[in-house]
Amino acid sequence: MGAGSQSGEDRIIARYFRPLARHPGAFGLADDAAILAPPPGCDVVLKADAIIGGVHFFPDDPADAVARKALRVNLSDLAAKGAEPAGFLLSLALPDGVDDAWLAAFARGLEADAEAYSCPLMGGDTDKTPGPAVVSIAAFGLVPRGAMVRRKGARPGDAVVVTGTIGDAALGLRLKREPDLAAGWGLAPALREHLLDRYLLPRPRNAIAVALRAHASAAMDVSDGLAGDLAKLCRASGIAAEIAAGGVPLSDAARAAVAAEPRLIETVLTGGDDYEVLCTMAPDKVAAFRAAAQAAGVAATEIGRVTAGEGARFLAADGRPLTFAQASYSHF
Amino acid sequence: MGAGSQSGEDRIIARYFRPLARHPGAFGLADDAAILAPPPGCDVVLKADAIIGGVHFFPDDPADAVARKALRVNLSDLAAKGAEPAGFLLSLALPDGVDDAWLAAFARGLEADAEAYSCPLMGGDTDKTPGPAVVSIAAFGLVPRGAMVRRKGARPGDAVVVTGTIGDAALGLRLKREPDLAAGWGLAPALREHLLDRYLLPRPRNAIAVALRAHASAAMDVSDGLAGDLAKLCRASGIAAEIAAGGVPLSDAARAAVAAEPRLIETVLTGGDDYEVLCTMAPDKVAAFRAAAQAAGVAATEIGRVTAGEGARFLAADGRPLTFAQASYSHF
Repeated sequence: MGAGSQSGEDRIIARYFRPLARHPGAFGLADDAAILAPPPGCDVVLKADAIIGGVHFFPDDPADAVARKALRVNLSDLAAKGAEPAGFLLSLALPDGVDDAWLAAFARGLEADAEAYSCPLMGGDTDKTPGPAVVSIAAFGLVPRGAMVRRKGARPGDAVVVTGTIGDAALGLRLKREPDLAAGWGLAPALREHLLDRYLLPRPRNAIAVALRAHASAAMDVSDGLAGDLAKLCRASGIAAEIAAGGVPLSDAARAAVAAEPRLIETVLTGGDDYEVLCTMAPDKVAAFRAAAQAAGVAATEIGRVTAGEGARFLAADGRPLTFAQASYSHF
Repeated sequence: MGAGSQSGEDRIIARYFRPLARHPGAFGLADDAAILAPPPGCDVVLKADAIIGGVHFFPDDPADAVARKALRVNLSDLAAKGAEPAGFLLSLALPDGVDDAWLAAFARGLEADAEAYSCPLMGGDTDKTPGPAVVSIAAFGLVPRGAMVRRKGARPGDAVVVTGTIGDAALGLRLKREPDLAAGWGLAPALREHLLDRYLLPRPRNAIAVALRAHASAAMDVSDGLAGDLAKLCRASGIAAEIAAGGVPLSDAARAAVAAEPRLIETVLTGGDDYEVLCTMAPDKVAAFRAAAQAAGVAATEIGRVTAGEGARFLAADGRPLTFAQASYSHF
């Protein structure tokens, strides 16, 4: 042995990940651990979420998109909690087939998003696995002490608001699995691409974190389907919610698909992978919140009301509640 | 759907992991994220490490030991950095065959160690995987601002010190893979069990975190083999080190195995999974450090000296440097 001997893991870290670790607390990935020095009076918001090849992404998805998705699903939770990103740790399990080109693209995607969202790589580890690639990220955000926006806190009378559009990623996943569906749904190529792209790459709403802290009584990110996630928010807050299904914001692509095949509304409302923010707030705050969100480039739509009781109900145009086979996506 | 509908993932979290999440910042795992509120003047030390079935543990290892190992490999890094544990996030990828008994045992092991090391579960996620189980943990520790013990900082003239005994886990792994070796090594059952157990369950040295902050000029945990990890410490500090191989502390079991088969010294010094602390300090601090470590129930042994130059050299009894085929364990 000699001082210059480096393992394959060391080589991968030095070549692909060290260039990303410019935060002073990352110590150039040349120590056992990293340091986050929170400003006085801040809470550190902690979130970990992993994505797995063949489960959360397709093995043939571009490596840069895999990296971005892994980071963005965590950034989405920080956004919904009103937290500003501060950094992340990466645990990467790599199958045999992964080569330098894949790693280079993965690191490129990770770097682009770490910069775009001001969320630097702080550390992590890399291992071989006999299974599919697993990208585990733990992300850290900062909020003023006690200011994290909770799931709990919605009050009867509050408005229910959601960002962006709902259902695109779930429809994109169906198109990815069954490309022939696009014809049946009457989708022009651009609309088809929109849905596929929204499955491939979430758009976390970190731009509205401060507005959420200022206005929301409760919030969460929509990752397992709007219906199921709203039910979780209701449980956490001890309230009920009533949503006008027709008022849920849809993209042109989703609208076209649902028009062609009306029962797709269930996929839209329960399908998951939206990575939008679902929140509640006093009705007199909605206008200011929408304005602040719009100024940050994010659409926000009021979709219903919080009521006393329990459960989330989605009402059709005729006032009857919709029923779903499965409220939210689950791997189990 | 209804408010009461819960996914399988929700059920697993509620049943097995919520009871562990008693830290107020974990919000009973009923929010998107957790909160750590560091005391004023503290840095948060961040570490992530994953263990993978068939790579870092055997699929038939007891589930409680798998959980403990996953947490302990991270605790070991916090220990080496002089950090006091503050909490952890868990990302769990579970293969199909995992049943309630496995999960119950896993949660039991995790709970026992979370309590023993004062490192509470703060949050995480659970997913199915078509591959082996992957247990990704991100652990958080606290140090006074700027007080994390770095890999960098060893100075020529410093003593090189290591805790516990070296090589047990590497020998235990060989015995696990080839049980017949025990006879050739002349190991009594208790010694064989000692080695197997040290592979199964690391003993992180969190009890000496404060003593390390007080005395060490540099430190890291020994996870990839003493020789390779010392070479890393040398590189980070820009120095060299000279170790008397005969002075490296061995357990009775390792001593017996090496006596029976002298070339096992290479396995001992390069084999990995020790999870001891390797550190350097001014020679006049060694006695106080050893006393503090001993008071905490941890043996600490001076094994060599830091010198100018580069590289880590292990010297045989005749003064000649040992050479190793591979300085440290790597999956790549």
